[in-house]
Amino acid sequence: MNSLHNPEIISFASDNYAGAHPEILAALTAANGGHVAAYGYDPYTERLQQVMRHHFGDQAECWPVFNGTGANVLGLQAMLPRWGAVICANSAHLNTDENGAPQITGGLKLWLVDTPDGKLTPDLIAEQAWGFGSEHRAQPLVVSISQTTEYGTCYSVDEIRAIADYAHSLGMKLHMDGARIANAAAYLNLPLRSMTTDAGVDLLSFGGTKNGLLFGECLVALSADAVTGMAHLRKINLQLASKMRFISAQFIALLENDLWLHSACHSNRMALRLKEGLEGIDGVSVCYPVQSNAVFACLPPHILEQARRHFAFYDWDNHGMVRLMCSFDTRAEDVDKLTGIMRNAIL
Amino acid sequence: MNSLHNPEIISFASDNYAGAHPEILAALTAANGGHVAAYGYDPYTERLQQVMRHHFGDQAECWPVFNGTGANVLGLQAMLPRWGAVICANSAHLNTDENGAPQITGGLKLWLVDTPDGKLTPDLIAEQAWGFGSEHRAQPLVVSISQTTEYGTCYSVDEIRAIADYAHSLGMKLHMDGARIANAAAYLNLPLRSMTTDAGVDLLSFGGTKNGLLFGECLVALSADAVTGMAHLRKINLQLASKMRFISAQFIALLENDLWLHSACHSNRMALRLKEGLEGIDGVSVCYPVQSNAVFACLPPHILEQARRHFAFYDWDNHGMVRLMCSFDTRAEDVDKLTGIMRNAIL
Amino acid sequence: MNSLHNPEIISFASDNYAGAHPEILAALTAANGGHVAAYGYDPYTERLQQVMRHHFGDQAECWPVFNGTGANVLGLQAMLPRWGAVICANSAHLNTDENGAPQITGGLKLWLVDTPDGKLTPDLIAEQAWGFGSEHRAQPLVVSISQTTEYGTCYSVDEIRAIADYAHSLGMKLHMDGARIANAAAYLNLPLRSMTTDAGVDLLSFGGTKNGLLFGECLVALSADAVTGMAHLRKINLQLASKMRFISAQFIALLENDLWLHSACHSNRMALRLKEGLEGIDGVSVCYPVQSNAVFACLPPHILEQARRHFAFYDWDNHGMVRLMCSFDTRAEDVDKLTGIMRNAIL
Amino acid sequence: MNSLHNPEIISFASDNYAGAHPEILAALTAANGGHVAAYGYDPYTERLQQVMRHHFGDQAECWPVFNGTGANVLGLQAMLPRWGAVICANSAHLNTDENGAPQITGGLKLWLVDTPDGKLTPDLIAEQAWGFGSEHRAQPLVVSISQTTEYGTCYSVDEIRAIADYAHSLGMKLHMDGARIANAAAYLNLPLRSMTTDAGVDLLSFGGTKNGLLFGECLVALSADAVTGMAHLRKINLQLASKMRFISAQFIALLENDLWLHSACHSNRMALRLKEGLEGIDGVSVCYPVQSNAVFACLPPHILEQARRHFAFYDWDNHGMVRLMCSFDTRAEDVDKLTGIMRNAIL
Repeated sequence: MNSLHNPEIISFASDNYAGAHPEILAALTAANGGHVAAYGYDPYTERLQQVMRHHFGDQAECWPVFNGTGANVLGLQAMLPRWGAVICANSAHLNTDENGAPQITGGLKLWLVDTPDGKLTPDLIAEQAWGFGSEHRAQPLVVSISQTTEYGTCYSVDEIRAIADYAHSLGMKLHMDGARIANAAAYLNLPLRSMTTDAGVDLLSFGGTKNGLLFGECLVALSADAVTGMAHLRKINLQLASKMRFISAQFIALLENDLWLHSACHSNRMALRLKEGLEGIDGVSVCYPVQSNAVFACLPPHILEQARRHFAFYDWDNHGMVRLMCSFDTRAEDVDKLTGIMRNAIL
Repeated sequence: MNSLHNPEIISFASDNYAGAHPEILAALTAANGGHVAAYGYDPYTERLQQVMRHHFGDQAECWPVFNGTGANVLGLQAMLPRWGAVICANSAHLNTDENGAPQITGGLKLWLVDTPDGKLTPDLIAEQAWGFGSEHRAQPLVVSISQTTEYGTCYSVDEIRAIADYAHSLGMKLHMDGARIANAAAYLNLPLRSMTTDAGVDLLSFGGTKNGLLFGECLVALSADAVTGMAHLRKINLQLASKMRFISAQFIALLENDLWLHSACHSNRMALRLKEGLEGIDGVSVCYPVQSNAVFACLPPHILEQARRHFAFYDWDNHGMVRLMCSFDTRAEDVDKLTGIMRNAIL
Repeated sequence: MNSLHNPEIISFASDNYAGAHPEILAALTAANGGHVAAYGYDPYTERLQQVMRHHFGDQAECWPVFNGTGANVLGLQAMLPRWGAVICANSAHLNTDENGAPQITGGLKLWLVDTPDGKLTPDLIAEQAWGFGSEHRAQPLVVSISQTTEYGTCYSVDEIRAIADYAHSLGMKLHMDGARIANAAAYLNLPLRSMTTDAGVDLLSFGGTKNGLLFGECLVALSADAVTGMAHLRKINLQLASKMRFISAQFIALLENDLWLHSACHSNRMALRLKEGLEGIDGVSVCYPVQSNAVFACLPPHILEQARRHFAFYDWDNHGMVRLMCSFDTRAEDVDKLTGIMRNAIL
Repeated sequence: MNSLHNPEIISFASDNYAGAHPEILAALTAANGGHVAAYGYDPYTERLQQVMRHHFGDQAECWPVFNGTGANVLGLQAMLPRWGAVICANSAHLNTDENGAPQITGGLKLWLVDTPDGKLTPDLIAEQAWGFGSEHRAQPLVVSISQTTEYGTCYSVDEIRAIADYAHSLGMKLHMDGARIANAAAYLNLPLRSMTTDAGVDLLSFGGTKNGLLFGECLVALSADAVTGMAHLRKINLQLASKMRFISAQFIALLENDLWLHSACHSNRMALRLKEGLEGIDGVSVCYPVQSNAVFACLPPHILEQARRHFAFYDWDNHGMVRLMCSFDTRAEDVDKLTGIMRNAIL
């Protein structure tokens, strides 16, 4: 098969517009050939358990899956009885961007909370954490937070621990949507474990696709009793890969050395460079603290229009707010070219 | 990442114990690099549409997904109103091997029919094709057949057409689970189109994983109005790949030349060689016609025990029936070694 | 069976603490005896169709069901494709008081809107009425309003028509949760038709239980194509009564003369009397306009405590707001007794 | 409301063509008036617990619901984890007559077993009771039997105990669909407890509607840990009656004296009389043992045609088999009239 695209072109649309890191592709080749048992009974998936335990502690247990919505829906289902509900931010990906998957496929009721910056707090969670025992109210038994949030912001370890303590005190568990947790770890300059296992998170949706995998996410249970029936539910939720070695091998390549961190640091650095470039431009304002690989900015229409001729990015609302996303393969010259175009945009 | 398995070892357990064909891996490399739009708005997915139309006709439309259970559940949902049910063989993968996915995730009621060899006929379908309009009976609005069947048998084109005509005459649509359709085409020595579009099939779950892909299946709508809301339902059913270029590129590599057919012919040939080898062995009988890459055989315990020391395979029942599956990378010497061990097994 | 309760005791807790109106009981007796076809193929259900058409127009079609949550979940499902979502007020019963039924049983995603008084407007709906066609966003294809709202307020006919016009202009349908629509009609002094069919409502959940039935609600489709597959979905959603004559007969008794209106006028009058009584009491404030049979009031703790010794009512929040509900059998002396107790409460 | 039907006309179509027993109607009147707490927190529902414990033992706990499909779907859901499946007879009402409710609303996979007479045995159950632990097979964790079966046959206490022992030995629970359990008790001449609690049944769907109630069934948990989350699941499955006193009062009237047994004995006696009448008629054969209120018979076309002019009944297949059902209000003269018409039918 011939290449059908120009590999020189990059964008600021999403970290899933990027392809796969070369080391990830190499891992697929290394895992290929011969026969190994299907459905996860292979040496790569076994090894991945050890790799995950290295990062998250000896009690950790992991289940590779196909994609992020799959990880979230499956993970939350496995944390909850049939009548359980989830407290999350109104802005959570789970609510805004996963179509009806949580409700229709997962049977999950979401109790939503408005937040200033995508981050929950015990006080905000308390708005929905009530009615325990009432048959009229879907039972809020899990809190789900996103690290990083949809606005690219990060929870500190203390903030997560406060949420975990509050949730646990009410008999609720804590789920973390970590589609971009590597970027959070890079920003906070902390090991993965400190903001997850050690902060009281019960289940993590560990993101791979947005950090240089071809595809693949991984559910990681961090506490005893975090989940039930995961093996069955993964199959039922259409997330059981037959040739699972190819997901597991990618994650091993990502996590057994520091590829995960290296890539995340790079995309974060590019976002900071972008933010700095934007700040000098007339009429442009950066909307949220840049704490990962995303920059949210408000731009006048003429700048938007001229920038869009060269690079793809997402409109975030109808008032000129856009999201500019960096990835493991964003180059400094791409950033500079974008900010240069913006700086020189003619009214 | 280092290789963790011995690539010399093969098995007869399943065609998903095999890895990926080298040309498939090469396609991933060719599709990598730079940024393309996510979620299927990329040049590879666009090109795949053309490739599929080449095989299935100009009206064909396709949607890449992650796995076979995903393809079946999503496809059947998209063919049916909320109250629709599916007539299928009792032995169908959909009923026997997909856990509760069709029911729990898909909300699909299956009306089951006993068959001698995994193949439905109009007469067999008629056992369940009734009660139209009654609110007490789940409405049978789709017939699902498997090409090849779970027993490795193939429908002839005439048999499929008879089913399609019967189904359509009652207002039902026809779905084909084509997890191994390439093997059927190789066996029948016919183009894919003749046993699908031209025979009246409405929707096809086109299998890739079992024919040398790393992962990936593809739903192909063959008739107008075969499906509704596929884009939404794919996301809801957790089957929307963000970096879809990597599924589409694999399928292009499989289908734009004759890799699909070459691999299927090879695995079929190996199965025939295996069957011929088995037939000469005392106490061994082949249970179903060998019409694809699967051989079902009944073996005495001592042969089973000694063969199992060298090769993995599946027990199919508790009475000595086993399934021996060949794949694109099964070698003639592997087959001969297996039959040799069996022939020389000591009582 | 002997009576186990004191029929002299009434409460202000809920209109479903009340029993059945004597005329409703009489209708059960009239419908009893002999055999009629089950599942709605009986003369009472047939007659109910005519009664409903008298109120809602010749195109109306109705389906009796068991309860309000059943009516809402079934009705919304029948209005929507599998991927459809519902825009409703954050305060809607559908969101706050039906546990996970809409999500888990109905597979319904709710897009929530904050409102000052439980009432949606086109501008408020617009906050969620977007993203049509995107596979990432659950498709908002129905707007659901409550007449009366959870706060006892009523939409005017013009307000409903504005919502209907807006919804229809975007290809959305309009559902009305009319658990207390009789109280709205009594308040607005208008025929049922004017605020439903004539205002552009597509489907109505017509409430019976809260207006003097033993049990029973009725879905009424008001426009062509409002719903699909209702007969099948009613059975699937566990809402098909075998002896349906006993639901239909109750509705005939309620609606063929003016019992529905008489009862609603009475309970509204009692609520007004209660409101007037409350307004004279020190430290008491009425929180929402009293436009039906509900009075929401903020009361100091000592009044609450002393009133609660005599009458049951619901706390609506943790800050002293309570709901006081009147029903068809609330007596003027009950109201006066309650306000008397409150007026004389000792600090 | 005036009566719209002729109360003299009865049929042999179904026991739900009948109305309500006068004592049941009287109970509604006794339970009416005044206010009691909604949703089951009333003195009638409390008393019903005692009545049920009288019949089923001190550990019994009960939940009134609306209808039989609701009882079955809710009860099975409450017995099972999300990934649990149910083994039942192919002929079970659950499979044949509840549309897709078990699958679509309940998320229940049924593992079906062919039976000669609607009755399961340990050997028959064993055909599906395997694959425990495999993520590819929906986990069979409940066996559901019907007492009486769809063919009107009864399990003996020993047969039930054998099934219960077998099920429990494999970690499965036993559900009984007792839509007509009163008829079984009447036939076996045994207390309800002997064929349920004492025989090892874990959960019973206790039928009321077919034995003279207006509507209403009751789930009765007979063993500890039979169910989980019933209160939540009842609401979620649309089976929570707000004015629950009116279901509970009917059941008290049915069960606190011997109305249940008296009615069941009567309908059984009428079925026996019918069977005896049929046996003398040329060309007529009774198809199953008559062990309750149903008679299945094969009749020549001319008899069918002439009988149908006078009485309604159900065709059970396309070969002249019909179901003739008696109910609490079937009169001996109705039976004699029917058999007389059949006996005198002219070829």
